[in-house]
Amino acid sequence: MRYFLQLAYRGTTYHGWQRQPNGLSVQEVLETALTTILRQPIAIVGSGRTDAGVHAGEQFAHFETDATLPDQLLRSLNSLIPPDIAVYDCFPVRADDHARYTATYRYYQYQIIRRKDPFREGLAYLFNPSLNVARMNEAAGKLLEHIDFESFSKVKTDVRTFNCQIDWAYWEEKPNHDLVFHIRANRFLHGMVRAIVGTLLAVGQERLSVDEFENIILARNRKQAGRAAPAEGLSLVEVGYPDAVFNERRSA
Amino acid sequence: MRYFLQLAYRGTTYHGWQRQPNGLSVQEVLETALTTILRQPIAIVGSGRTDAGVHAGEQFAHFETDATLPDQLLRSLNSLIPPDIAVYDCFPVRADDHARYTATYRYYQYQIIRRKDPFREGLAYLFNPSLNVARMNEAAGKLLEHIDFESFSKVKTDVRTFNCQIDWAYWEEKPNHDLVFHIRANRFLHGMVRAIVGTLLAVGQERLSVDEFENIILARNRKQAGRAAPAEGLSLVEVGYPDAVFNERRSA
Repeated sequence: MRYFLQLAYRGTTYHGWQRQPNGLSVQEVLETALTTILRQPIAIVGSGRTDAGVHAGEQFAHFETDATLPDQLLRSLNSLIPPDIAVYDCFPVRADDHARYTATYRYYQYQIIRRKDPFREGLAYLFNPSLNVARMNEAAGKLLEHIDFESFSKVKTDVRTFNCQIDWAYWEEKPNHDLVFHIRANRFLHGMVRAIVGTLLAVGQERLSVDEFENIILARNRKQAGRAAPAEGLSLVEVGYPDAVFNERRSA
Repeated sequence: MRYFLQLAYRGTTYHGWQRQPNGLSVQEVLETALTTILRQPIAIVGSGRTDAGVHAGEQFAHFETDATLPDQLLRSLNSLIPPDIAVYDCFPVRADDHARYTATYRYYQYQIIRRKDPFREGLAYLFNPSLNVARMNEAAGKLLEHIDFESFSKVKTDVRTFNCQIDWAYWEEKPNHDLVFHIRANRFLHGMVRAIVGTLLAVGQERLSVDEFENIILARNRKQAGRAAPAEGLSLVEVGYPDAVFNERRSA
């Protein structure tokens, strides 16, 4: 039987989503807790990887087991895992529903604060140079006119194509001048949102023109783009699936 | 010359506002940083004490110095102190403006979340039994009909009276059922908000009636009231002063 988990995490203390040898990942924490509760080895597959320090307001993962899930699974799971990870739902899906391959879109937000905020430490990037937000939005609009984003991908990668269908990409300016970058696409390349944000910040500081930004996209060369913005500002906020995935969903 | 500081802090890692021998306080961090920057011993007086783990979205303090303040005082101060304390303003006041005695009111909020939230760990109290919020608000309304709150004061205290003028006290229920208790008064006794919140939660769970809550107020005996709610949910959010205090205020 295959199950989906819906969860959230603060990424600050983790070496990203993906299990790895040199540090604790969110995946490892969840696999260890599920293995303990279900008394059999459980492997989970996430909708996608997030880097070290990146957060998820919404993430999905799937796992398979022939064990009967205990009634209090969510309660047991949440008390076994640390307070910076929360599992909100666990529901059965069809055998071919896949947390990664069935997902139709991922939606990320990048939070920028303009002054020190003790309550958002590690959850936003403090960046206070003056910014031309209109120009950043003009450049962000160019992302929707292209599909190959190799310029914003980490160089070491095993993907077959660099094509992404971007649904939206824009900056929201809050009344207190904090900024949120919203970007949704069918897929993202490794490091892509942070590279785009870093390059758009150069546009905002008028170190790059909108035309130069578009030329960076066209170059298909990571060296042309700006420095990646820090991980702490980035959150995966929504993952989309076809409605049928949720047919067996039950409330937490 | 006397100056006011306007600041905020996440209280999680501090032994409260007030300097003390057995742990680091917010006051000590600020005094040490100001002493370093101004090259003379600086003592600060806060608008009031907050307990260990309690936060402040807004706190004021004053200090005196004959040194000329450097132009970049706020920048230097914020880079010397840790990210969980932020100083937003520093402005001259009259010699008799006092952070504590000139304050006309303090406004606190107590945050309750109903499910685990990785992004509010340490900033809210996770409490999920079902609650009768209407009844909690009915009881909270009784607070406005009384002035002596000895029942909600820590027993070891050196105050001369237990009288507080409460301006408002009510529970706000968010669409996701999170709760915020709002309370404003001219002064608060030691431990008062947490004792009131803990007792109102017993009312919400229908372990106490509204009449019993009022009888607790009338008893003037801390043993009658409920257990104090945890520090992590509590924040000082606003301190009121007469307008004249801000006459010399400059923007950060």
